[in-house]
Amino acid sequence: MTSTVPPTGTGGLDALFAPKGIAVVGASRNPAKLGAALARSLAGFAGRGGHLALVNGRDEAMHPSVRAAADAGPVDLAMVCVPAAACAGVLAEAADAGARAAVVCGGGFAEAGGPGVRYQEELAAVVAGTGLRLLGPNTSGFLAPRSGVTASFVPGAAQVRPGRIAVVAASGGVNHAMAFLLTEAGHGVSLAVGLGNAVDVSAPDVLDHLAEDPETAAVALHLESVADGPRLVDAVRRLSARRPVVALVVGRHDIGAFAASHTGALATSWRTTRAALAQAGAVLVDDERELVDAVGALAVARARPGRDPGVGVVTAQAGPGLLLLDDLSGRGARVPGLARSTQETLATLLPPLTYQRNPVDTGRPGPELGQVFRAVAEDPRVDVVAGYALHEPDAVDLVAAVRDGRVPDVPLVLGVGGTGDEVVQARRDLLDAGVAVATEPRGVGAGIGALLADARVRARRPGAVGPQQVPTGIRGAHDEHRAKGLLDRLGIRTTPRRACGSRAEAHAALAELGGPVAVKILDATVLHKTEVGGVHLGIGGPAELDTALDRLDAIGAARYLVERMAPPGVDLVLGARRDPVFGPILLLGLGGTTAEALADVAIRLAPLAPDEAAEMPAELAGHALLDGWRGGPVLDTAELGRVTAALGDLLVANPGLDEIEVNPLRLTPDGLVALDAVVMAREAADAHPHR
Amino acid sequence: MTSTVPPTGTGGLDALFAPKGIAVVGASRNPAKLGAALARSLAGFAGRGGHLALVNGRDEAMHPSVRAAADAGPVDLAMVCVPAAACAGVLAEAADAGARAAVVCGGGFAEAGGPGVRYQEELAAVVAGTGLRLLGPNTSGFLAPRSGVTASFVPGAAQVRPGRIAVVAASGGVNHAMAFLLTEAGHGVSLAVGLGNAVDVSAPDVLDHLAEDPETAAVALHLESVADGPRLVDAVRRLSARRPVVALVVGRHDIGAFAASHTGALATSWRTTRAALAQAGAVLVDDERELVDAVGALAVARARPGRDPGVGVVTAQAGPGLLLLDDLSGRGARVPGLARSTQETLATLLPPLTYQRNPVDTGRPGPELGQVFRAVAEDPRVDVVAGYALHEPDAVDLVAAVRDGRVPDVPLVLGVGGTGDEVVQARRDLLDAGVAVATEPRGVGAGIGALLADARVRARRPGAVGPQQVPTGIRGAHDEHRAKGLLDRLGIRTTPRRACGSRAEAHAALAELGGPVAVKILDATVLHKTEVGGVHLGIGGPAELDTALDRLDAIGAARYLVERMAPPGVDLVLGARRDPVFGPILLLGLGGTTAEALADVAIRLAPLAPDEAAEMPAELAGHALLDGWRGGPVLDTAELGRVTAALGDLLVANPGLDEIEVNPLRLTPDGLVALDAVVMAREAADAHPHR
Repeated sequence: MTSTVPPTGTGGLDALFAPKGIAVVGASRNPAKLGAALARSLAGFAGRGGHLALVNGRDEAMHPSVRAAADAGPVDLAMVCVPAAACAGVLAEAADAGARAAVVCGGGFAEAGGPGVRYQEELAAVVAGTGLRLLGPNTSGFLAPRSGVTASFVPGAAQVRPGRIAVVAASGGVNHAMAFLLTEAGHGVSLAVGLGNAVDVSAPDVLDHLAEDPETAAVALHLESVADGPRLVDAVRRLSARRPVVALVVGRHDIGAFAASHTGALATSWRTTRAALAQAGAVLVDDERELVDAVGALAVARARPGRDPGVGVVTAQAGPGLLLLDDLSGRGARVPGLARSTQETLATLLPPLTYQRNPVDTGRPGPELGQVFRAVAEDPRVDVVAGYALHEPDAVDLVAAVRDGRVPDVPLVLGVGGTGDEVVQARRDLLDAGVAVATEPRGVGAGIGALLADARVRARRPGAVGPQQVPTGIRGAHDEHRAKGLLDRLGIRTTPRRACGSRAEAHAALAELGGPVAVKILDATVLHKTEVGGVHLGIGGPAELDTALDRLDAIGAARYLVERMAPPGVDLVLGARRDPVFGPILLLGLGGTTAEALADVAIRLAPLAPDEAAEMPAELAGHALLDGWRGGPVLDTAELGRVTAALGDLLVANPGLDEIEVNPLRLTPDGLVALDAVVMAREAADAHPHR
Repeated sequence: MTSTVPPTGTGGLDALFAPKGIAVVGASRNPAKLGAALARSLAGFAGRGGHLALVNGRDEAMHPSVRAAADAGPVDLAMVCVPAAACAGVLAEAADAGARAAVVCGGGFAEAGGPGVRYQEELAAVVAGTGLRLLGPNTSGFLAPRSGVTASFVPGAAQVRPGRIAVVAASGGVNHAMAFLLTEAGHGVSLAVGLGNAVDVSAPDVLDHLAEDPETAAVALHLESVADGPRLVDAVRRLSARRPVVALVVGRHDIGAFAASHTGALATSWRTTRAALAQAGAVLVDDERELVDAVGALAVARARPGRDPGVGVVTAQAGPGLLLLDDLSGRGARVPGLARSTQETLATLLPPLTYQRNPVDTGRPGPELGQVFRAVAEDPRVDVVAGYALHEPDAVDLVAAVRDGRVPDVPLVLGVGGTGDEVVQARRDLLDAGVAVATEPRGVGAGIGALLADARVRARRPGAVGPQQVPTGIRGAHDEHRAKGLLDRLGIRTTPRRACGSRAEAHAALAELGGPVAVKILDATVLHKTEVGGVHLGIGGPAELDTALDRLDAIGAARYLVERMAPPGVDLVLGARRDPVFGPILLLGLGGTTAEALADVAIRLAPLAPDEAAEMPAELAGHALLDGWRGGPVLDTAELGRVTAALGDLLVANPGLDEIEVNPLRLTPDGLVALDAVVMAREAADAHPHR
């Protein structure tokens, strides 16, 4: 955990990513050596007039030292290609010679264990002592194609096209894989960085750099582990306010040992990391294909902000149209019926046999396709347009039709099926015309999904968040009565109850509350009351009460809680706790073992505005249960939002509070009622190490 | 429903897919007309010496009739490019002139409604009267690139490469999209067919044709709706016994109106269709990308049959390796630790810093990569190998390494990252060397997933299925007692019970069985006993019993069921019913509203062997609940298999039985116990229209 440690390098990353001069230290004439591969890759930099200096003390044709290289021209960046044990020394020499940035590509550091741990510490010490910005170690480098800086030993890397998409990847291999995929998809990159062991330069550093980079239209972020959650969230929030960020988080499944060997232990969960990034404004994807589709679409166009944008679907063949519609449905996209005026326009353009309501299927497309795109895009219910057509140049000039049919602020993602150079060229021309392209319906769906997610993120009102009027100074043990008292003060409904110190008090409580009641052991040290026989429900009269109290006495109860029974309903679980990486988080799930076995849970960082919290239930796989399932109660999401936000505010305002869980929080015809609550608070209110 | 209707055309499909001569009826000099486009597409056929005759009665440069065309050379196949109203006449003329097959590409038939319905009926009448095999109407045709028969009006269709993968698609558009994607992926097709309205030639016909086609190594099947479930299942079963079949079924989500307009109503469910195809031996995929990856891998190689094959993972970069491992985990792939001898071999090949247990990460790859592949593939625990490497020709010649590392019967799916012609060529060379390729980790995962599914299908023992010793002649109303008597005869455990006609009998039953008991209304006409207050649980003594009987009397109970309570456990729902398309099916789900809301259900066709039924629980999302969740009971899958198979056999053996559902079927520490059962049987045992 390094959440309180500032980045050790100082200064921006321009010296790293836009150097005037580069020294390759450990250059070699042996073409199989890293130093030789790097020198080859950087030939384009020298060709553009950059100062490229090869340093090798044992080769008379090269500079004997970084100092000598710096004497021959500017050296901002040192590419260090020497064995791990020698890297720290070279780094110090480079800094001394005036270099302000360095890349260490080789491995053999912390990821390898053994002496590598010490070598890495030595690197960190040089960074801390000199302010040099260091990328790596254990990375295949970075690519800045526009300035010819191919700081990578991977042979094809120089073929990556310059473009407007930036890649920030935990792994050098993934960085290259993404840069290649984006090039193949017709995009290219503005900057592509593999972070490796990230001794100094980490994802937030690069994201902050990209927030100021006018050449970057969208950012693809690949994450394996997170060292500093809040810093990452802040960086994503700042960047996503200026340009879209699409994130792929590794580790959905348990891939433990190998992941640890590559990235170090995963201290937080995959779900929490995804939730934190989404909340910070990133669009989340599930795999590297969707990453290409999503960032590709967002680099071309963004939809108007909207909480529930409408998708117009235009296809030239009904079969691929069905695949596309099925995919969009799976993403929760809304495909609204078109306005009457739009349908009238379409009726003048299309033969009567075609489907014209949305989706709009043109049958075989003709020159009218552009007007069809325009009519659908101009429909007031449509915010983005999804399209698919086979490449049929004898029927319609797709590029011309699309140029003709473009409507400002209504992005089009168009799948173009076909093979051969002509089709590749058509896709590129479409991209140049401001249309996102894909090769099949699934890719269109992924692009549209990203545009919708981005539009929804931007439509979030920045509602009031942060500690409201919540109790502070919470500490020490909480039995159920005290925990529910806290809920009462937060405005979270409980049922009438009495804490009883004796049998007589319990009988008085029953008489006062009226039956049936629940009777429970009241003891802050008993966490699983039901499991130990500490809960008796539906107690109607004095005789039953005595039986229940006998049983509670038998398990050592000194005090009792007598509580009026709540009506039946649907049980939820709502918790607030501290994540070791991201700090205060909120978790909402359905009650019951099935939901638990499926790990069906929505997560948010706290503090959280009530209207954002109100969106959590929609994420649950079983959310239909909260919407009047079989005549049951309907959740008031605004009420749930208030309750959830209050718990988050409580956690944020109380450093001594570790966790509070309401389980169950029951949805009843009368609203939400907390049936049980657990509060974990420390005696001493020492500040928690995570905020 | 056409399940009892034989195909109306007669004879095989050779005249359709491998014609000696083709007449284009309605050919045109206007390049924008379909007839002109088809003539252009078929130029390759003529170029190979096939007889291509253009027919147009109004163009003196063309043949005036099919008869005239047939006089000039053989005409097996008529491509009909005339308006819908004229098609039947042309079809009859073609048949009369000796053509044995025809394609009608145009639309305006049943899918369009109105007079189109009649035009389609006229086509069917000609087919029935002449035995002509008809593809279409409403299809963009078919492609047989090896013989130059590009029977399609889509311009790029002639660029589809000949290959060893067949496509059978419900939609002409999807057929072309798939053919293009397969070409782009380096494969090409042996035959690609779009079925359209399928008046005559349907998916089972083409699948049967492909079972005899030595040029086809694997088949991609795209389905929108199923007219005849049993016929489709039989065809898939026959074909998959000879070569792999990969199926994509449209309609996961509700895409109702548009789907109906394109395909007609969906009479069965998406889940049932997928389950039926899987049971018949097909590999199921979720989208067209996975279809390409899966059929591409299976066209190159199949793994040894195995119930739980092991995957060896070899990567040249750890980051993409993690993405691959995450994807494989999501597919339920098993990545076993390697044998000690394999690890020893790897230790001699790789530097000590690399991960060598499985996954095996080589760090930067070198010439030893081939030996690494070989060592992993030779490991006795490994059945298939998944790999990923960036294209780094200066580090390793991937194609040579892979050739060197190939082990017979252990397929390799290799992702190759990179851009440019060299990389494309390397992927093609790998394909030629018998290695399945992909462009990213996700594609490798999809290919491996298909190889595993195929290996599992082929490992299924053809266990005894079909009506065993089950009761027959079941008909008429069944109250719970009678329904449970049926379960008793099937060997499905129930709890001791007594059917009681009077209060005195009920008291006697309580005394005999001992408390606590369940007391229920016994009335075959009451289907939802709990909802009407007809079920009272945990009755311990005579006074409680009387109270319960009073309440049952109040809802009109004439008879009672008194039954010993079962121990607590995990509730399942098991049913057998008749699907309108596929006939007898079995459904298994978890009990409770959450499982119901999530529609978490496993489906199989009946009859079913017990060992196949035993595999159903593993498909449930919540299957962890059946495996000792929180100290609960562990399901004996063999027992569940026997119970499930018995229900299926019962349905198959009793035409008068519409449905039997055991709900709940409780998993207890003592095994499975049926707590309630509903039997829906008709009074008259008339044969059901579906088998």
